[in-house]
Amino acid sequence: MVSPDRLNAETIIAKKRDGGELSEKEIRYFIENFTQGRIPDYQASAWCMAIFQRGMSQQETIALTRAMAESGETIDLSDTLDYVVDKHSSGGVGDKTTLVVLPLVAAMGVPVAKMSGRGLAYTGGTLDKLESIRGFNVHLSPEQFKTRAAEYGIVLAGQTHELAPADGMLYALRDVTGTVSSKPLIASSIMSKKIAAGADGIVLDVKTGSGAFMRTIDDAVDLARLMVQIGEGTGKDVTAIISDMNQPLGHAVGNALEVREAVETMQGSGPADFVEHCVMIAGQMVRLAGKSYELDLSDIDTELRTRLTNGDALAMFRRMVEAQGGDLRQLDDLNLLPQAPVRRELKAPHAGYIREVDARGVGLATLDLGAGRRKKGERIDHAVGVIVHQKVGDHVDAGDPLFTIHARKEEHASQVAIDLATCIEWADRPGLPLFYDVISTR
Amino acid sequence: MVSPDRLNAETIIAKKRDGGELSEKEIRYFIENFTQGRIPDYQASAWCMAIFQRGMSQQETIALTRAMAESGETIDLSDTLDYVVDKHSSGGVGDKTTLVVLPLVAAMGVPVAKMSGRGLAYTGGTLDKLESIRGFNVHLSPEQFKTRAAEYGIVLAGQTHELAPADGMLYALRDVTGTVSSKPLIASSIMSKKIAAGADGIVLDVKTGSGAFMRTIDDAVDLARLMVQIGEGTGKDVTAIISDMNQPLGHAVGNALEVREAVETMQGSGPADFVEHCVMIAGQMVRLAGKSYELDLSDIDTELRTRLTNGDALAMFRRMVEAQGGDLRQLDDLNLLPQAPVRRELKAPHAGYIREVDARGVGLATLDLGAGRRKKGERIDHAVGVIVHQKVGDHVDAGDPLFTIHARKEEHASQVAIDLATCIEWADRPGLPLFYDVISTR
Repeated sequence: MVSPDRLNAETIIAKKRDGGELSEKEIRYFIENFTQGRIPDYQASAWCMAIFQRGMSQQETIALTRAMAESGETIDLSDTLDYVVDKHSSGGVGDKTTLVVLPLVAAMGVPVAKMSGRGLAYTGGTLDKLESIRGFNVHLSPEQFKTRAAEYGIVLAGQTHELAPADGMLYALRDVTGTVSSKPLIASSIMSKKIAAGADGIVLDVKTGSGAFMRTIDDAVDLARLMVQIGEGTGKDVTAIISDMNQPLGHAVGNALEVREAVETMQGSGPADFVEHCVMIAGQMVRLAGKSYELDLSDIDTELRTRLTNGDALAMFRRMVEAQGGDLRQLDDLNLLPQAPVRRELKAPHAGYIREVDARGVGLATLDLGAGRRKKGERIDHAVGVIVHQKVGDHVDAGDPLFTIHARKEEHASQVAIDLATCIEWADRPGLPLFYDVISTR
Repeated sequence: MVSPDRLNAETIIAKKRDGGELSEKEIRYFIENFTQGRIPDYQASAWCMAIFQRGMSQQETIALTRAMAESGETIDLSDTLDYVVDKHSSGGVGDKTTLVVLPLVAAMGVPVAKMSGRGLAYTGGTLDKLESIRGFNVHLSPEQFKTRAAEYGIVLAGQTHELAPADGMLYALRDVTGTVSSKPLIASSIMSKKIAAGADGIVLDVKTGSGAFMRTIDDAVDLARLMVQIGEGTGKDVTAIISDMNQPLGHAVGNALEVREAVETMQGSGPADFVEHCVMIAGQMVRLAGKSYELDLSDIDTELRTRLTNGDALAMFRRMVEAQGGDLRQLDDLNLLPQAPVRRELKAPHAGYIREVDARGVGLATLDLGAGRRKKGERIDHAVGVIVHQKVGDHVDAGDPLFTIHARKEEHASQVAIDLATCIEWADRPGLPLFYDVISTR
């Protein structure tokens, strides 16, 4: 790779610093040379700060995404699969959606081949959750990945370092230079990995609320629109769903606890909100891929609800677990999944309506229990977590269960119990609150 | 009044344009000369635009408030009343709070003397609502205003033009130059009038939501904090309540309809949300004034609830109406209040939970019926309006009433019925929504 004439990092940084619009050539030059180590970190972080301050146009963001997607290996599944549909969640508390949606979509006759990241948040990511199952192997070579997808119609593996390396390198810098929360940088990061992994269609679950990265609906919509525009600019089909993350999704928060809830959902006893969520996400995935696989798209939702609970989805999940070395006995008897030695139930101190179950607070509590990571590479405890018994709007009587804490040690449970109590906001009546705040001179 | 040396409008405008902080002297010079007609409108509007773009510090905002409050006459009630407590609402749909809160606070032994503005919004203001009562006179001289306050313990009149004239002049300019929605300008406008009218304590009902000027809680809190800071800077007691305006307050929206609901509330049959709202606002007013009037502040809320429904508040309301020339027979028989000839009931087309009753939409519908003003000076129709039967979170069955439209003509009712139908958002279940939006490339 030869640097084009006249292009250099300093002038590209200065152009963005002053609010200019970078050309595709300039962006590609910067990303290629950064990935090859010819542009040093201190220049790349200055460039990220300039992007953070000045923003990027839609065209710049598309160019950045394409440059990062093409910065390393790319996977091409087109010789074995007609259409590859992928999903991505911006992350939330109790978000075990992939565990159900992947087998459910596969059960509809749409093959799914997904690469996931590890969690760096309240609980583990999808890979961590699946590793609650003894023996489950997430490390597959691109060749194994392709073979499993063709043979079984379902595969879920860890992302390899060879894919979109520029994104990984840039993210590590952003993480320590206060430049994470820039929409063009977030959008290009997510989309570059999906494109490099060979997706034709991408369903984005963009969460908004207290437990999400995007706190407001407006921010979530802006980010979603940008990613849809990237899809249009790179020839990918993209559907973004803006979903609520003000309260945890379903009831279970924690790795093995979430696997259990996912399996129970595929056995027909899932929480109502989580079932709706899975049907929504799976429905959008099937809609994107459906034409390529000549599916009847007239009544997808009914079909999805049927296959979610009639054993079809669970059979696909078992097929995936078996193919990747997981111990099926833990699915036959869910009590064989990792279990925490300490259980503590928090009861409602009085009757009332649940106005809020703070997703962020519950997430931080499970992190304190050891279910997630504060730093990259930290070990997580698959057994611990929290069961959230109530949803916003529920009426509870005094003594009804609010939370069940699954902890490694008594002292952990005691500390977390105090924190969880503050996650519930009460109301005397259902519906909207009447007042939000009182501010006074005395 | 002599202009101080070296001060002139152009340098003051330029200083603000470049982001400088104006001194109290500069602000007072600008306001005084503007009020006297020595600074022309085009300079004042440029100044407002510079303030809009660059903002104002807390000190600047306090200085602006004080300068506007002192730009004309000020009322001093201290020879007849120990402590004057006033209230202000930032305006909402179905907000008939003053009609109940003023007599309720007076019934607690705290004299109330309030000046109100006319409505320039969805429905009329408090003055317009009271004028639904035949003969009610809102035009009182400052002398009459003082006498009534001392004699009856309650008076509610229109604001005279002599009070804070700089505010009225500046607001008229802002209204046509796109500079209304600037927090320092809003806060100083509200507070300057209250201070000029002689208030010692001010309770601010700052609404937030779809039917409010401040759409987000954060914006409402910012505005409230600024007004509390102005209170601290001008030696006034101020309490701001951030209250919900995503759905109409109570059920009635429209002038005579709201008078009726207010009277019914004082007869013990008020809507639950409106009762809570009145008790909250009245409670804060009593707390501010209570020390000066040596009240037992230990259980104000119980006391307020008692006097709201035992006839005490209603007796005070009747006393005010009688003193200001209103026809008491219309309170004895509420059917004698202005009534619209056309009534149309909208029924629920299916069962479900009410997720949203869009306050803004309902407000615009009542405006279309003629209950409010689009331009200053427009006549309003006291009889028309909308009864909103359901609150957010309610479960309704198919055929339950959603709205009753009170219209002047059949064709008005038909048009408004279509608009109102879109104000209701439905949900399959109580609690938070699961999804907010879906955005897609195709």
